[in-house]
Amino acid sequence: MTAPGKIRFRDARVEMAHGAGGKASRRLIDGLFAPILFPSSTDPLGDAAHLSIDGARIAITTDSFVVRPLKFPGGSIGELAVNGTVNDLAVSGARAEALVVSYVLEAGLATEILEAEIRAMSAAAARAGVAIAGGDTKVVEHGKADGMYITTAGVGRAIPELEISPRRVQPGDQVILSGPIGDHGITILLARGELDIDADLRSDTRPVLPFVDALAKAVGGGIKWMRDPTRGGVATSLNELALDCGLGVVLAEEKIPVRDFVRGACELLGLDPLHIANEGQFLAVVSADRVDRALEALHATPGGECAAVIGEIAAEPARTVVVSTAYGGARVIDMLVGDPLPRIC
Amino acid sequence: MTAPGKIRFRDARVEMAHGAGGKASRRLIDGLFAPILFPSSTDPLGDAAHLSIDGARIAITTDSFVVRPLKFPGGSIGELAVNGTVNDLAVSGARAEALVVSYVLEAGLATEILEAEIRAMSAAAARAGVAIAGGDTKVVEHGKADGMYITTAGVGRAIPELEISPRRVQPGDQVILSGPIGDHGITILLARGELDIDADLRSDTRPVLPFVDALAKAVGGGIKWMRDPTRGGVATSLNELALDCGLGVVLAEEKIPVRDFVRGACELLGLDPLHIANEGQFLAVVSADRVDRALEALHATPGGECAAVIGEIAAEPARTVVVSTAYGGARVIDMLVGDPLPRIC
Repeated sequence: MTAPGKIRFRDARVEMAHGAGGKASRRLIDGLFAPILFPSSTDPLGDAAHLSIDGARIAITTDSFVVRPLKFPGGSIGELAVNGTVNDLAVSGARAEALVVSYVLEAGLATEILEAEIRAMSAAAARAGVAIAGGDTKVVEHGKADGMYITTAGVGRAIPELEISPRRVQPGDQVILSGPIGDHGITILLARGELDIDADLRSDTRPVLPFVDALAKAVGGGIKWMRDPTRGGVATSLNELALDCGLGVVLAEEKIPVRDFVRGACELLGLDPLHIANEGQFLAVVSADRVDRALEALHATPGGECAAVIGEIAAEPARTVVVSTAYGGARVIDMLVGDPLPRIC
Repeated sequence: MTAPGKIRFRDARVEMAHGAGGKASRRLIDGLFAPILFPSSTDPLGDAAHLSIDGARIAITTDSFVVRPLKFPGGSIGELAVNGTVNDLAVSGARAEALVVSYVLEAGLATEILEAEIRAMSAAAARAGVAIAGGDTKVVEHGKADGMYITTAGVGRAIPELEISPRRVQPGDQVILSGPIGDHGITILLARGELDIDADLRSDTRPVLPFVDALAKAVGGGIKWMRDPTRGGVATSLNELALDCGLGVVLAEEKIPVRDFVRGACELLGLDPLHIANEGQFLAVVSADRVDRALEALHATPGGECAAVIGEIAAEPARTVVVSTAYGGARVIDMLVGDPLPRIC
């Protein structure tokens, strides 16, 4: 990590890639936002900020949602907006207590589309066990937005058993993934008609809090790090971990679950499933001595039946993610570069 | 208030007026959002939601900012985004503890414009004594936003001396206003070049927390209701109060401070200064027996020197705001109707 407080972002203009969640996003955040907004911080940026108010340990987070199209198999922007914020709190080690929602609406938007998304948010909030406590609405001229953008912020209560920090990660710790990757990103691509294929694929959007709860109960402080690998995919989340903890992440390719259709679509497009966005998957780093209990707990949680160890933490290669193949080869896998699938969430 | 849970919003499409903060906004919120998101609530919607976490009384709020142009005399979108959220917490009776910020950026936005707004947010947060704790950035294609939209959410600590609710408002209570109205709205209009006049006018954007603090200390529970009259102006805020408490608000026109230039511009445009947006003004309803102490406290607070009683609460006309003139006349003043000044914040 270079000196805090120094602006290192040199791009003259904002480009789509700066919002893709990959390398360019990290350059924008670390190089421009963080030096101005958090000049004295050397903490890795997490999914949610934790603070103490009158003795209560709370967490707060926010995300904007600009997914296109607004509705797609398995979900819609309103459902993502609830699950995304609940999940950011969950993987930071907090249970969402209340959400607030702000809408930027494009003039001319059909009321029935808006109503459907408000209903989707209400249903998702009920499913995640969180209250929607308030909000705001702005309207911009036709052509100054794309239907609607939704921003949710959530406040949560820290789960006392957990102590999540990349600084606690050590060589030998195990990397767990909840299930098949890439479903969300490829579903969005299909919904846009950018691949002329019919497939029975759905977004995996869902709350990951049940996994966090199950792990907290089963292995508590044995959990070192958690993440929901959304924009930029599993590869980007694990590269961030590698940078934040200064260690290496070594994945076993054959253990990473990918549906055949997603794998095929990625091959067609020249993309790696490890770079494709998910909305309901869950990554955790757990100490080796507790990994069996952790897996058992996840397997017993609805939706976690396919959870598996996909790799482990190693001292070398430091700050790097490596995928080893069944044939004995290995390749370095970087964060997402560029923005092959814009506006995925 | 009609039965909760029933959708009464019948407009087929979203229009600019639905975001103006006036009558159409209230129809959208009360008729569509509230019945789906808060089906069982009969509470008036406040500027922030209050909840209890592990015994701590906290407040949470969010607002999106879409002001055009991004920069104007006296402020900019980043400064509004901080002050607006800090102020929503303040008038709900809470001190902002942390903000999170989410940006929707238009591809092609010049980095120097973005950097200026991040700096404006940082400076405004320092001025308001609040930390920016985290955030998110999305990028949409050129032509799918207007430079940038910013959404801030804030979590605050309830100020223990205060018990703010329109239900505590009674006939005889006094209405206090902090200073001259309409500066922000007319400044934006001038900045857009929509009036071919040069004027030395600036947005009044500022944190109103010092006023809340001063009042809390001086008269505590004597404060019944507070609001920062932004979109829709003083008239809309007081009409909301009248509806929420079921009483009348009787204003004395000659006591309402309006700068000559703002009054002149409003006359030219056929607008009432009471409908023009402010960003740093403060309205409070205080019990009559404490109003002198309240005014004294505000006058001793920097920026509150012009605070004045502008009217009082009356049993009749119920659910209505009336302005009495120096000549003995009186007129009913409604919420803002339509959207004469779109994207004011």
